[in-house]
Amino acid sequence: MNDEAQKAATTTGLYQVDLMDRYWRAANYISVGQIYLMDNPLLREPLKAEHVKPRLLGHWGTTPGLNFIYVHLNRVIRQRGLDVLFICGPGHGGPAMVANTWLEGSYSEIYPEIGQGEDGLRKLFRQFSFPGGVPSHAAPETPGSIHEGGELGYALVHAFGAAFDNPDLVVACVVGDGEAETGPLAAAWHSNKFLNPASDGAVLPILHLNGYKIANPTILARMDDLELRALFAGYGYEPFFVEGHEPVPMHRLMATKLDTVLDRIRSIQTRARTPFWQGERPLWPMIVLRSPKGWTGPKEVDGKKVEDFWRSHQVPVSNARSNAGHRKILEDWMRSYEPEKLFDNSGRLLPELAALAPTRPKRMGSTPYANGGLLKRDLVLPDWRSLALDVPRPGGAKAEATRILGSYLRDVMRLNADARNFRLMGPDETSSNRLDDVFEVTNRVWMQRIEPYDVHLSRDGRVMEVLSEHLCQGWLEGYLLTGRHGLFSCYEAFIHIVDSMVNQHAKWLKTSRELAWRKPIASLNYLLTSHVWRQDHNGFSHQDPGFADFVANKKADTVRLYFPPDANTLLWITEHCLKTYNRINVITAGKQPAPQWLSVEDAEAHCRAGAGAWEWAGTVAKGEDPDVVMACAGDVPTLETLAATDILRSALPDLKVRVVNVVDLMTLQSNSKHPHGLADEDFDALFTKTRPVIFAYHGYPYLIHRLTYRRANHDNMHVHGFREEGTTTTPFDMVVLNELDRFHLALAAIKHVPGLAERAKGLAAELQAKLVEHRAYVREYGEDMPEVQEWNWPENSATKAGD
Amino acid sequence: MNDEAQKAATTTGLYQVDLMDRYWRAANYISVGQIYLMDNPLLREPLKAEHVKPRLLGHWGTTPGLNFIYVHLNRVIRQRGLDVLFICGPGHGGPAMVANTWLEGSYSEIYPEIGQGEDGLRKLFRQFSFPGGVPSHAAPETPGSIHEGGELGYALVHAFGAAFDNPDLVVACVVGDGEAETGPLAAAWHSNKFLNPASDGAVLPILHLNGYKIANPTILARMDDLELRALFAGYGYEPFFVEGHEPVPMHRLMATKLDTVLDRIRSIQTRARTPFWQGERPLWPMIVLRSPKGWTGPKEVDGKKVEDFWRSHQVPVSNARSNAGHRKILEDWMRSYEPEKLFDNSGRLLPELAALAPTRPKRMGSTPYANGGLLKRDLVLPDWRSLALDVPRPGGAKAEATRILGSYLRDVMRLNADARNFRLMGPDETSSNRLDDVFEVTNRVWMQRIEPYDVHLSRDGRVMEVLSEHLCQGWLEGYLLTGRHGLFSCYEAFIHIVDSMVNQHAKWLKTSRELAWRKPIASLNYLLTSHVWRQDHNGFSHQDPGFADFVANKKADTVRLYFPPDANTLLWITEHCLKTYNRINVITAGKQPAPQWLSVEDAEAHCRAGAGAWEWAGTVAKGEDPDVVMACAGDVPTLETLAATDILRSALPDLKVRVVNVVDLMTLQSNSKHPHGLADEDFDALFTKTRPVIFAYHGYPYLIHRLTYRRANHDNMHVHGFREEGTTTTPFDMVVLNELDRFHLALAAIKHVPGLAERAKGLAAELQAKLVEHRAYVREYGEDMPEVQEWNWPENSATKAGD
Repeated sequence: MNDEAQKAATTTGLYQVDLMDRYWRAANYISVGQIYLMDNPLLREPLKAEHVKPRLLGHWGTTPGLNFIYVHLNRVIRQRGLDVLFICGPGHGGPAMVANTWLEGSYSEIYPEIGQGEDGLRKLFRQFSFPGGVPSHAAPETPGSIHEGGELGYALVHAFGAAFDNPDLVVACVVGDGEAETGPLAAAWHSNKFLNPASDGAVLPILHLNGYKIANPTILARMDDLELRALFAGYGYEPFFVEGHEPVPMHRLMATKLDTVLDRIRSIQTRARTPFWQGERPLWPMIVLRSPKGWTGPKEVDGKKVEDFWRSHQVPVSNARSNAGHRKILEDWMRSYEPEKLFDNSGRLLPELAALAPTRPKRMGSTPYANGGLLKRDLVLPDWRSLALDVPRPGGAKAEATRILGSYLRDVMRLNADARNFRLMGPDETSSNRLDDVFEVTNRVWMQRIEPYDVHLSRDGRVMEVLSEHLCQGWLEGYLLTGRHGLFSCYEAFIHIVDSMVNQHAKWLKTSRELAWRKPIASLNYLLTSHVWRQDHNGFSHQDPGFADFVANKKADTVRLYFPPDANTLLWITEHCLKTYNRINVITAGKQPAPQWLSVEDAEAHCRAGAGAWEWAGTVAKGEDPDVVMACAGDVPTLETLAATDILRSALPDLKVRVVNVVDLMTLQSNSKHPHGLADEDFDALFTKTRPVIFAYHGYPYLIHRLTYRRANHDNMHVHGFREEGTTTTPFDMVVLNELDRFHLALAAIKHVPGLAERAKGLAAELQAKLVEHRAYVREYGEDMPEVQEWNWPENSATKAGD
Repeated sequence: MNDEAQKAATTTGLYQVDLMDRYWRAANYISVGQIYLMDNPLLREPLKAEHVKPRLLGHWGTTPGLNFIYVHLNRVIRQRGLDVLFICGPGHGGPAMVANTWLEGSYSEIYPEIGQGEDGLRKLFRQFSFPGGVPSHAAPETPGSIHEGGELGYALVHAFGAAFDNPDLVVACVVGDGEAETGPLAAAWHSNKFLNPASDGAVLPILHLNGYKIANPTILARMDDLELRALFAGYGYEPFFVEGHEPVPMHRLMATKLDTVLDRIRSIQTRARTPFWQGERPLWPMIVLRSPKGWTGPKEVDGKKVEDFWRSHQVPVSNARSNAGHRKILEDWMRSYEPEKLFDNSGRLLPELAALAPTRPKRMGSTPYANGGLLKRDLVLPDWRSLALDVPRPGGAKAEATRILGSYLRDVMRLNADARNFRLMGPDETSSNRLDDVFEVTNRVWMQRIEPYDVHLSRDGRVMEVLSEHLCQGWLEGYLLTGRHGLFSCYEAFIHIVDSMVNQHAKWLKTSRELAWRKPIASLNYLLTSHVWRQDHNGFSHQDPGFADFVANKKADTVRLYFPPDANTLLWITEHCLKTYNRINVITAGKQPAPQWLSVEDAEAHCRAGAGAWEWAGTVAKGEDPDVVMACAGDVPTLETLAATDILRSALPDLKVRVVNVVDLMTLQSNSKHPHGLADEDFDALFTKTRPVIFAYHGYPYLIHRLTYRRANHDNMHVHGFREEGTTTTPFDMVVLNELDRFHLALAAIKHVPGLAERAKGLAAELQAKLVEHRAYVREYGEDMPEVQEWNWPENSATKAGD
């Protein structure tokens, strides 16, 4: 016995090791049972074909390692009274999470129909990966999970997100060696540069090197220990290795190492929570667990290596129902865990084993940290009206919308500073996106060296900036899922980087919504700015408004798309979003100086309706029938629509124009499709049933067609938007290239209003000439013509309305 | 003078250092000029307001470092006769790439209107970030670039992709410390585990730590050298540090280190290219360059630190046009480079400096590796007919479509083995996606330890598997952009992980297409399999068919979406895609055993048309008017549509049904919108102008509405597809949950054919009952009813058609 094993034996005792090993075997037994059996759960009789499920769906490979970790965490939770959140990176480890939460009792409390004892066990086995049952991942249905892991890469960012501002929490995060190959995970190790040991909790990464993915070895498992140590030292961790395959020595080793790393964590935190702490970044410990894939499963099947190889990834014995030889392997395998030494005659875990699990909320399947809605406290929100811009008349003020929002977010920060439950995320763009006012009350969090000339960096900042949309997104998800609030401000084009993460979060929300025990969490809020129309510096690569299209595919009860046309509407919408829960709110708003349209009262009324006619901008009174509807969604399209209307009104005073602005895009859908959808009669009242609609939309035109295709007037929708024509040019040239500018919009009205083309021939020619003039001017002078730069909403517009 | 400096002095000589420094200054001067000036390029007169651009757009911060690297690479290219491809990770380094390619003459050769001399210089300055001019990134317009870098994260994967199978190439890849924070970049360092030193080229990463992003320090720059060394040793590199700010010592240091790392690379390659090589993975060298951000620019502006700080990121002196003080700073700054010692009186680079650049194709701006179309050789393709499945009659064979494709890809591998210009990428799923046949002729490439029991791993495999869609995508992009071919096979849901990368590649293609000098490259081909309808193991998290929607937003001349319904159509489509260029082809096809519909001849005719009526499946002859069109796109929807038609035909023999299958989704768009779009008359001939169309589509129904919204019959399109209702269940239950199954499709026909609802009341009731029966059965037995599992296309269908 070497020193470490000696120490382990002393620490935990031989009897303790035996108990833990039996508990582990119980978890393994229940995991195998879930994958294979629909009856005879305690193997009271020899296994028959009809006991085996007809479709064997599940993943064994990662499961015994997860069970091993879970059992060992149970011990330290009890011994140390810890609050531990378990993040199961290998999403395919569903059987392990279900087995352990059932063993500890959490499962039956949440799902009383799956009780303790033989009948509950039978149902537990049967429901797994079974129609109408539970998924094979650590899905929302799984107690104790905030991380499904179906898509790999986000275990560690979720773990850090959960740990921020939860100083008493230890997040044990199992990272599979497959997942460790992904980009988001590779970057996520650097999250320790943003974790404050004084005010945040601890993340304990457990890198599980079981060697293989679906059909390949893994990169990290085939690196030698020297390279691994260097890599993690480079990332800022001290790795502790637990390696082997003999259960008893492995239990001892794991227990010793786990005690060591938890001692380290305690001493790091103790030090950081004294006045002597200088703010230095600690060297956080981590565990590297090398154990065989499919550990304790069949060594070989049909002469082929299974245990400790990728063949154990899914279902190691595939024909257990139809092939008696395979069934024998399965039965021997299950009996090797000696169920008779684990369960009593009624199928309950033996009391001496059950006693190993922590009690009530300390159980990892019952921790409120994994059901964040339980912990969520509503934000204290400032009165947006007090921060609103004075807009004496439409166009009567100019402002950068996001800068006004910055002052609102500053106050949100201030009012919730004590609660420590609001963070702002962004990839190095908080200032660039003009939200600087937040720095009056907080800083960017930064655990690296800070130089005297650095600006707004501190150890306890609540703004998180890192040049990785993946990290911003993942941290925020973890933060929300554990009951807090936040907002992610991002360049519009680059939010696509996290499409797939948003997808998974939307799926999580959809499923959670159907589970009464999962309490609502705060919405995932995006501010997309530096948008497609104002990439003056960056050009084509930074121009993509397609995130809205992506999000619109998600379930209607989950997603919202907002296009506030100015600062006051942006304030109202943001306040609204911060109050909602279980949603994905996408707000798109520019950061450039722009005319302001709505007063506080008008903004509120307009946002509540989601879409409305701006009578002051058109030439028809309410209820009167227009010749054409000039519709718009988005700040730049609104400006161009108003300018186009101005052109039409001046040149064709008889033309009846209605201006409709859409701030909540989902109003366009039918109310049978989306809760925010307008009823058909309300839609028709705005857009008419028969008149041409010239719709200037911020993004790809198709989305408007798709949202309105069931509306009576959809054949008359002429949508102008981004046509993928972009480059580095002036703001007005960008809209011209995509035919979203005032001249093209006015031309479209002329074209589509019956009979107008003939009557307005002169105007049309004039507008075409303007476009030629514009092109020449811009190419000569490198800036927009004064005429378009200086255009302002006519002062006398209010009196004109309804003329 | 320390040893290293001594060596540098001897190697390059003081005169050489002075020349290089002047060349560097020339590049810096031209970079500043591009950002600021529209006239007076040689500062022949004092700088006036009108010489300065009205809008100052560009990025200075990274530029001097890039210029420094470029100048030093020029030296080693000349001295060693190397072929070097320069990957400019900091995309904002456009001014550096343009300056250097102009100095070496490449720029003026490609763009003769931007000549050498003062007039060319004036135009060069003026066009930068100017309307109608060139972008601020290393965009397609930039000679020598395969990597725009507008979106950060992909420099290193592109570099490795370029190096594979190019044994004589050195790819010098500058990684910015901002970019180094992204996930894809963090994972990309592991690409060295897939690079064979014998048959691939070398990648020389140059990590440029200039300390800051837009408004923050960077993580890596604030790590100490010990941590950095550990990190990169862990990644498998030997880092060489070049650190400082005094130009002369920095030139010496850089020259020495560059010689050292190139010697290392040569010795690694020499060794690997002898019979003595044991296949071990070498420790590749890399350079860590620590130089000030905005190096040589203004130290302070308005009392604020600029050089060596993030304030130099974009335009360090922002009001140079309107503010005389600022203009003075700019002028002093530009004159500090002593243009009179760099250029002759005509504005040409002095001959002794021009002589420093390599000549013709060795110039990095002229290397054919950066214009891959020049090097591209068409693939030798097998005759797909020889591998096609014998399908004696529709439904007369069963097969796994992707397995048949595997045999085709095997032959593609075999026929192009000597050319070494085809690779297959996938995140650990080549076998899972049933493409195993390729392993008859090649293996997975793997430079880590190989165990005796490993399967299909070797040092020179042409299949690349890593659990990172980002790496697969990036490697393939780099491989294609340097003139080779490939295919990326991916789980359908997880291709969203690379949405943003696809976006950037589509933008690259769109712009390249407009540049005559950029020769076409092979298309980016996707095989999306393990699709939404067959996630039996994985459930909801693995169910997302939305990539098609995302891609459909891109320019019509770039994107194609194919849904082959069976194996032979999959073969034809794949062959077609491998022959195309400058496109993004997305093929979606299942891997599960499924009935086969079309013979070789029928498959070819059907695929050529893109969409067509399957008369054998319907009950109307060609030209006859149907009561209802049953349309389908995708393998599972096709099966369900045929089964629904079978139900209708049996129960309602008088009903006239036409079955239309769509294999090329873009045929649905108008031919004015997409080159593959059907003309309206052809569309109407298939889909009618007035009859109900029950459209069973593989993905989100909206896409069909959006593609057809301008068609005459669009109001009669009733699309069934994925409604975001997913879970772990049986295959048939999945289609039922989303109402894409035969019963719902038949019910939809009954509902929408005028007058049929009344007549077919009995059938409707029967179908509803079937749905209830199905639900109960699946929940009881865990598998699909035999009736749906065993349904086959009726043998006598051929005789029935046209009855």
